[in-house]
Amino acid sequence: MENRRNFVTKIAAGMAATGFMTIAGKANTHEATMKNVFVHHVFFWLKDPNNKESLTQFEKGLQTLITVPLIQASHIGRPVESAREVVDDSFTYSYIAFFRNKEDQVTYQTHPIHLKFIEDCQHLWEKVIVYDAIG
Amino acid sequence: MENRRNFVTKIAAGMAATGFMTIAGKANTHEATMKNVFVHHVFFWLKDPNNKESLTQFEKGLQTLITVPLIQASHIGRPVESAREVVDDSFTYSYIAFFRNKEDQVTYQTHPIHLKFIEDCQHLWEKVIVYDAIG
Repeated sequence: MENRRNFVTKIAAGMAATGFMTIAGKANTHEATMKNVFVHHVFFWLKDPNNKESLTQFEKGLQTLITVPLIQASHIGRPVESAREVVDDSFTYSYIAFFRNKEDQVTYQTHPIHLKFIEDCQHLWEKVIVYDAIG
Repeated sequence: MENRRNFVTKIAAGMAATGFMTIAGKANTHEATMKNVFVHHVFFWLKDPNNKESLTQFEKGLQTLITVPLIQASHIGRPVESAREVVDDSFTYSYIAFFRNKEDQVTYQTHPIHLKFIEDCQHLWEKVIVYDAIG
């Protein structure tokens, strides 16, 4: 039991240090390397990226979307401007959902919460790119 | 102390359930939502994506790259094929580095390990796209 507790505490410290949660802890790169994770990264370009109402509505949609139970972890972000040519900072929203495996992501595609998100928000975007990676 | 331990164990269970580490635990979406995280996602298109030696050399480079201490967590992935039009599955490697903040990512750009990775591996790729998102 003590060993298990130490193990769990060690993981928590490593994960916490990643910035997912803020508690003291030193990151260990090898502990914090994600393995056997399906990364579903979606970039949205809104039609009207400077319209506050559009942004609010879209963010509300994303906050609901990430409640799909199959999603193991998520990240919602805005672009960080860069002068570097290789950086594409033209998108309006970045949305990452982490799944256990490919099957879960396929199931997620037709989950009612996901379909509702598309129905409620698709009028807001003009372009979407999805990158799915596993490793 | 007991409260702190419970708190840490709860985080560990949540994070473990994300698939980063495999131990029993039920994911809680809100616990597993990453906040205040800088996501640096890089897609590489190799010149010779079917050449095993190129892949091995490139993967070795990535494995070294993720040892940059500023990286709080990382993910290295290969594309998941998809028939969906919005999915771009043409890349050879997906590489994500999670940073605490923008400053750490800027510092990482000129870290000796990062510069060595570029020097050693840049002849292997023909195209790179970087997406930086914070949220």
